[in-house]
Amino acid sequence: MTILNHPDKTAILLIHCPDQKGILAAVTDFINVNKGNILYLDQHVDRKANVFFMRVEWSLEQFSIPKEKIEDYFNTLYALKFQMSFRLYFGDYKPKMAIFVSKMSHCLFDLLAHYSSDDWNVEIPCILSNHEDLAPLVEQFGIPFHYIPITKENKDAQEVREIELLDSYGVDFIVMARYMQIISDEFVAHYPNKVINIHHSTLPAFVGAKPYHAAYERGVKIIGATSHYVTADLDAGPIIEQDIIRISHKDSVEALIHRGQEIEKIVLSRAVEKHLQRKILVYQNRTVVFS
Amino acid sequence: MTILNHPDKTAILLIHCPDQKGILAAVTDFINVNKGNILYLDQHVDRKANVFFMRVEWSLEQFSIPKEKIEDYFNTLYALKFQMSFRLYFGDYKPKMAIFVSKMSHCLFDLLAHYSSDDWNVEIPCILSNHEDLAPLVEQFGIPFHYIPITKENKDAQEVREIELLDSYGVDFIVMARYMQIISDEFVAHYPNKVINIHHSTLPAFVGAKPYHAAYERGVKIIGATSHYVTADLDAGPIIEQDIIRISHKDSVEALIHRGQEIEKIVLSRAVEKHLQRKILVYQNRTVVFS
Amino acid sequence: MTILNHPDKTAILLIHCPDQKGILAAVTDFINVNKGNILYLDQHVDRKANVFFMRVEWSLEQFSIPKEKIEDYFNTLYALKFQMSFRLYFGDYKPKMAIFVSKMSHCLFDLLAHYSSDDWNVEIPCILSNHEDLAPLVEQFGIPFHYIPITKENKDAQEVREIELLDSYGVDFIVMARYMQIISDEFVAHYPNKVINIHHSTLPAFVGAKPYHAAYERGVKIIGATSHYVTADLDAGPIIEQDIIRISHKDSVEALIHRGQEIEKIVLSRAVEKHLQRKILVYQNRTVVFS
Amino acid sequence: MTILNHPDKTAILLIHCPDQKGILAAVTDFINVNKGNILYLDQHVDRKANVFFMRVEWSLEQFSIPKEKIEDYFNTLYALKFQMSFRLYFGDYKPKMAIFVSKMSHCLFDLLAHYSSDDWNVEIPCILSNHEDLAPLVEQFGIPFHYIPITKENKDAQEVREIELLDSYGVDFIVMARYMQIISDEFVAHYPNKVINIHHSTLPAFVGAKPYHAAYERGVKIIGATSHYVTADLDAGPIIEQDIIRISHKDSVEALIHRGQEIEKIVLSRAVEKHLQRKILVYQNRTVVFS
Repeated sequence: MTILNHPDKTAILLIHCPDQKGILAAVTDFINVNKGNILYLDQHVDRKANVFFMRVEWSLEQFSIPKEKIEDYFNTLYALKFQMSFRLYFGDYKPKMAIFVSKMSHCLFDLLAHYSSDDWNVEIPCILSNHEDLAPLVEQFGIPFHYIPITKENKDAQEVREIELLDSYGVDFIVMARYMQIISDEFVAHYPNKVINIHHSTLPAFVGAKPYHAAYERGVKIIGATSHYVTADLDAGPIIEQDIIRISHKDSVEALIHRGQEIEKIVLSRAVEKHLQRKILVYQNRTVVFS
Repeated sequence: MTILNHPDKTAILLIHCPDQKGILAAVTDFINVNKGNILYLDQHVDRKANVFFMRVEWSLEQFSIPKEKIEDYFNTLYALKFQMSFRLYFGDYKPKMAIFVSKMSHCLFDLLAHYSSDDWNVEIPCILSNHEDLAPLVEQFGIPFHYIPITKENKDAQEVREIELLDSYGVDFIVMARYMQIISDEFVAHYPNKVINIHHSTLPAFVGAKPYHAAYERGVKIIGATSHYVTADLDAGPIIEQDIIRISHKDSVEALIHRGQEIEKIVLSRAVEKHLQRKILVYQNRTVVFS
Repeated sequence: MTILNHPDKTAILLIHCPDQKGILAAVTDFINVNKGNILYLDQHVDRKANVFFMRVEWSLEQFSIPKEKIEDYFNTLYALKFQMSFRLYFGDYKPKMAIFVSKMSHCLFDLLAHYSSDDWNVEIPCILSNHEDLAPLVEQFGIPFHYIPITKENKDAQEVREIELLDSYGVDFIVMARYMQIISDEFVAHYPNKVINIHHSTLPAFVGAKPYHAAYERGVKIIGATSHYVTADLDAGPIIEQDIIRISHKDSVEALIHRGQEIEKIVLSRAVEKHLQRKILVYQNRTVVFS
Repeated sequence: MTILNHPDKTAILLIHCPDQKGILAAVTDFINVNKGNILYLDQHVDRKANVFFMRVEWSLEQFSIPKEKIEDYFNTLYALKFQMSFRLYFGDYKPKMAIFVSKMSHCLFDLLAHYSSDDWNVEIPCILSNHEDLAPLVEQFGIPFHYIPITKENKDAQEVREIELLDSYGVDFIVMARYMQIISDEFVAHYPNKVINIHHSTLPAFVGAKPYHAAYERGVKIIGATSHYVTADLDAGPIIEQDIIRISHKDSVEALIHRGQEIEKIVLSRAVEKHLQRKILVYQNRTVVFS
């Protein structure tokens, strides 16, 4: 079972443009008159920014426009007219997801579980790491593992190598499954809204190197995790998903870390799932997550 | 029904002291040999700080030490020996809770609901406000309402007046039910761990005057509320209770505020309930919340 | 602030009909060509039942069809063509909500809190009860209270009286705020999908008179509440909202009841809010709850 | 890091007995006078049943009673006196957990993730299945996989074989990770409170073969999962852990199943963790889950 849960021959359009009358009617009309059968449609208007957002998914079974010409036709006939930004995806394409890891396996494991049980319409062509620890686990799953150690001195060069490697695999997007390295702005610029990260979150937020220790000292009652797209501004990119778990004064710092990992893996997998379903549209620094 | 859910003739001891062998045995022995029947007992040892915490509640029905002498006996026989800090409460005493409000009624209403339906073992002798807006609501419930406007100029004098007023009512603790004034360190010093506040929390935390606007701009997926004891360091006092509510990109700033109020009132009422049940022990800047 | 959060001069259409191409385009076109400005639109297609559902809200500021003629025009031009069932609501109408209570006040209080702080666009013309206990509380709020005792013998007659009373107040819908009486099928038939009820829920569900005792005996770890429209099949009507709260072995039966009340009031208020926002569409025994 | 998070040389006592004065003092005294250092202590009194429950964990570093004699001493000196049922565990023993699976891998994967990352103090000597599907996955992890097909005819014989196999591995407890077979009362009787199961839960509960279809038809807003010890009365054993996940009308039956699996694996892993930590005490049909 795939969560996408529809026949392969589908198309998905993600659109945003300045709001004005008639957009929705125009887009649905485009699909209808060309004999596409709309499967899902969700739209949202940001009244503050006056921006229209839309996701529509339709069957290509009887669609009269050839698959390879849809983008061109839609662009010419509608996108220009309504000043749209849009992306077109096809259901029969299996996105290629690279995973970056360091030493911790909890998030990687949950991704591999979904991958391995065919929950998700995804291919994992390679896993990269700045440490060798997880190589045996990755190799168990028959996925190429690339060990790319990072030092201050070699960082720029290694990132170039990483990009070449990812390109050679035709990677579509990257998941940082607790990859404990800051990536450069140049690297980020290669993958706009295509690098998904996970980090712990606490209420209140604690800055510094030991957030769980700070959370413990303050006696917080919940800890959370936030998954977001990576932007140049570290950990401040558009949020995809968040959730929390309750803790108590009985939880030691180690227990907080353990509980934090439990919620991290759940939140990251949900974010990846939404991304694979093409349900996320980024506008400025916010996401619209279609349901 | 009261949530305390036990006969009135009970005593509650809250204790903390340096951890060492034999404390628990000594305290339970004190109660047992004097024919007290232990109803609830919860203890916790902070291994990092090496501090022992304990809450014990017992029936005084057949207790052989007269009520008014328990504190003295316990102090002499045990507290000095184990370097304990302790507090003794009696179940037949109804704590006097003052409420401070400004203009918003959501938290006040929830407190009055619990009060009015006799959920809680509490008396509300007075409600103070820096605005007159909620006077009619408060008077409906037959509770004295004191309008004490605050300006930069009169603040010190008004706080003195407030303390006099609270003293005249014999107030035991104060709940800030969205009281939109910063109280002075002097005021706080009069009520150590006796002023309960509620404030919104977001992940990540946004500083500044308009947190909900910032949360909206960032597209957060959950918003929360934190209830804590007020200390000199504003909004950084020991946390009593926290919880969150899920939101989405469809929620406007106004909707965020509305949802925030929903979770604020729930979290504040839970914190007040724990305080009334004598289940909270503050140590350094953390709470131990006994279950 | 009202949660509806838009100018009064709006219209809301709730539609369902057999799914076919062109419905969405037709409806949005109807609004657009007549100069209505769409504020919110949400749609859903039930692929299993092949039914199309839609909620659209638009501004009437410049709408060229007079308010009183919209229903007729829409019916003639679209509803017949697409075999639609639809309802039309106007934002400047304040729905009249009657509340039925027995002896417990927790749900009533939460409804009154929202009402009294003007959160909701609602009028409460009357509160009915089979007990006199809550009369003083209701009268505090200046709302007429009708005491209508129910016995086996007088039940039919009293329900007739209730309907007359509700009609005389022009009541639009009824909220059963822990009204501990089973209402007859005849009564229900007068208010299809217009009576909102709340009841506790446990996992697993326990039948019989004392569900909290059964939940305690089984040692459940969560208890919940379900709000639904009342149908002839008791407690099996279309579900509007559900939520849960965590409990533990330390919670006595009384504590379970207390915690259950906390979640009941929250769930009921959320359900009423959705109903007031005209966000609920009932189809067969399910609700579509638009976001 | 292990979640047990303490030196190996510890002992854990789980006790229950009729409540009476002095039990707590006696037990803590036993540990103290023999130079054991109490690390964690939690107790609970069920006032309704008048039963005392206790979990105490202490360091054996300087404990004066030899490890192998503790059980005998405690039994002779205390258990008989207080009519205690008790169990004694040692922190340096690694429990042997067998896993039963059928075709679905989501729960198995999450257990292997915890196992493989050394989160848990556990050994997995074997995995049994009535289908061959998961053999390759299991073998990846170097764990013996036993394929034991079950038919009506061979069921009794196969269960005998299973018990022999489990005995040969010295298995301490069994986790049914979506094992889609009903096990016999005879099998259950061999492992009292030692077989952990997981099943979906809905509010309300739907009986019959297709609960997710029923939940869909009813339009439920949350689905849950319950982990419990298996008793002769199917799915009615003592509950260890429960949790829920929110769903909406947009979720198809397939999506409900997918979301159900997400919460099943989380709840099952939490239950196994509590079991491994020796934090669960079963009394009648309820669990006391120490914190």
